[in-house]
Amino acid sequence: MDKKEENREQKEQVVNPWEVSSSAGKIDYDKLIDKFGCQRLDHSLVHRVQRLTGRPPHVFLRRGVFFAHRDFNEILDAYERGDKFYLYTGRGPSSEALHLGHLIPFMFTKYLQDAFKVPLVIQLTDDEKCMWKNLSVEESQRLARENAKDIIACGFDITKTFIFSDFDYVGGAFYKNMVRVSKCVTYNKVVGIFGFTGEDHIGKVSFPPVQAVPSFPSSFPHLFKGEDNPRCLIPCAIDQDPYFRMTRDVAPRIGYHKPALIESSFFPALQGENGKMSASDPNSAIYVTDSGKVIKNKINKYAFSGGRESVELHRKLGANLEVDIPVKYLSFFLEDDAELEHIKKEYGAGHMLTGEVKQRLTKVLTELVERHQTARAAVTDEMVDAFMAVRSLPNMFN
Amino acid sequence: MDKKEENREQKEQVVNPWEVSSSAGKIDYDKLIDKFGCQRLDHSLVHRVQRLTGRPPHVFLRRGVFFAHRDFNEILDAYERGDKFYLYTGRGPSSEALHLGHLIPFMFTKYLQDAFKVPLVIQLTDDEKCMWKNLSVEESQRLARENAKDIIACGFDITKTFIFSDFDYVGGAFYKNMVRVSKCVTYNKVVGIFGFTGEDHIGKVSFPPVQAVPSFPSSFPHLFKGEDNPRCLIPCAIDQDPYFRMTRDVAPRIGYHKPALIESSFFPALQGENGKMSASDPNSAIYVTDSGKVIKNKINKYAFSGGRESVELHRKLGANLEVDIPVKYLSFFLEDDAELEHIKKEYGAGHMLTGEVKQRLTKVLTELVERHQTARAAVTDEMVDAFMAVRSLPNMFN
Repeated sequence: MDKKEENREQKEQVVNPWEVSSSAGKIDYDKLIDKFGCQRLDHSLVHRVQRLTGRPPHVFLRRGVFFAHRDFNEILDAYERGDKFYLYTGRGPSSEALHLGHLIPFMFTKYLQDAFKVPLVIQLTDDEKCMWKNLSVEESQRLARENAKDIIACGFDITKTFIFSDFDYVGGAFYKNMVRVSKCVTYNKVVGIFGFTGEDHIGKVSFPPVQAVPSFPSSFPHLFKGEDNPRCLIPCAIDQDPYFRMTRDVAPRIGYHKPALIESSFFPALQGENGKMSASDPNSAIYVTDSGKVIKNKINKYAFSGGRESVELHRKLGANLEVDIPVKYLSFFLEDDAELEHIKKEYGAGHMLTGEVKQRLTKVLTELVERHQTARAAVTDEMVDAFMAVRSLPNMFN
Repeated sequence: MDKKEENREQKEQVVNPWEVSSSAGKIDYDKLIDKFGCQRLDHSLVHRVQRLTGRPPHVFLRRGVFFAHRDFNEILDAYERGDKFYLYTGRGPSSEALHLGHLIPFMFTKYLQDAFKVPLVIQLTDDEKCMWKNLSVEESQRLARENAKDIIACGFDITKTFIFSDFDYVGGAFYKNMVRVSKCVTYNKVVGIFGFTGEDHIGKVSFPPVQAVPSFPSSFPHLFKGEDNPRCLIPCAIDQDPYFRMTRDVAPRIGYHKPALIESSFFPALQGENGKMSASDPNSAIYVTDSGKVIKNKINKYAFSGGRESVELHRKLGANLEVDIPVKYLSFFLEDDAELEHIKKEYGAGHMLTGEVKQRLTKVLTELVERHQTARAAVTDEMVDAFMAVRSLPNMFN
């Protein structure tokens, strides 16, 4: 592809940690896999997960929400041999309340932790948000703690999970690895990967190593000292791939394993599939703080429908499931495969109306959000302190 | 000055933290003061120091080794008012043994600490040397500890002095200030100040905030928490000025005092005055590890002499003191003003021969180095640990 063509393509579809957009409306994930050079997560891998863990694969896995990977097969090889690995995921705490899209990597990571019985590190990049969103240090740290409560509410096992904020944890072994990574990455390289310009502040240029080094077990001596260099698996949305392309490039040069990745597509906005949900438009997303009434109202008012203009036409043509947001949302959160198939069939054939599907979705999401709210209300400051304490986790691999 | 003229001037004289050179041979310090925009340290300031501290100004002060400053007068104003300040200096640990040039800022800083009775932080930039000199993390840290022993041997007061290595200390309040600084400095700005290129690694781009933030008392909560925002005075060689120009630019934007500076010229190489001594040529410098015999030999063999070709001519013309290294070295290290004047007069008039001056210098430096060696031999690992312990210093202002 020549430079001009590439520019055109980049204009059409931009996916990086700070921007997800497509002039075509919908993200072309096949194109993204080609461009990023990752691998498609196919059925055989999903079956292998089922066989190795002895439990049904998570709905996000069997329905292709997590659709791409890098070396996930090697993680499974290692697991099969009895070698150890750990999970690493994170969140940039830029807002008080999480929406459903934010929950997806954490729900999936909890499944992986339970299924493989492995330790997990969760990075809260309060430094990143302080620099990109121009929040004060104090406000970024406050948001990190608030977000930690939502993350803990997802049900992580405290005997296997270490949550840390960069402002608290950067230093020591972690900082040493940051320096080791920084030495291997030129400015031109980060410009190529992240598109920084000369007018960007140097905090942005300095940040990629901060997100890179949790991929290396030596960044957590209180967890992994004495362990035989366990591998790292990172569940994340695919917009984070640039960080880990860089990390994987550097890893062998400083004597570390490349981290493996398992990557999700984006959870669409209520208004339709063109990128991620937007924090600046509260009506584009359902938040974990929304009441049942608000959820019902948002779904009825904003959820883009694939139903037809009139009941008559709908009965005749059936719903356009390709663009229908209620069905899309149900495919993320309705666990019953048979019921989902039934809805798709009936709705697609025009036997079921949008109103009915929205009603079912409202029930599913209200239950999910209420469950989350109950769990979050039970998370005390002491529990946050306990999850974030720098401590050893003697039973993390059991 | 237009761009072309500036380029020519930059070619003629380069002074930055990694390069000191001048096509004219000798650094033009007046030009440097103009270019950097700092102030000349004049006699009235020296007298003021004497008056305020009640002790004779240090030989480096009264002989113009420390010749430039930024806001040093404001530090003296603060001191006179009874406001507090602290000292900050540092070293990049790139070699095992220090030479005399390395000792100069520490000898002077010890004088300032004693004269003003103020706390001192000493930064060992092992991260910088790991990145610039391509040393391993472990080797940089080892050198930092070795260098700390030489620094401690200069006689610093352990009740007022905190020595830290970046690899150990970066994190927490220090890292938060690094992020605050990074947000205020664009990539173009650091390119303008330090001359980085796109092929430089991002560790270099990330480093200036690390050297900047010891200028801010909030980077040391164990020392200054509860103190009313003391000012900071940085004694250093003038090649470090670029870091602190950047720091002073940023400070008011993040609510901090600008650090003040007191800046020295470079200690010349034995072979003559063209820049700093070179670590790559052991015969260009006298090391604190050199024996009396080595010192004598180096001075006799390499110290550039302003004496004339023949004794006859010398008796007639006298020595050229402008280029004579033995006299230059004596003006740094011979404390007795009267004796120095006597030597300069007699040598300049041709009554004294180079051999005699070199003999006197050999005695002065041998005594200095032997004193240092004795002091260093007495520095135990426990003392290093004690100076580097993160601790409060309750008597640091007494």
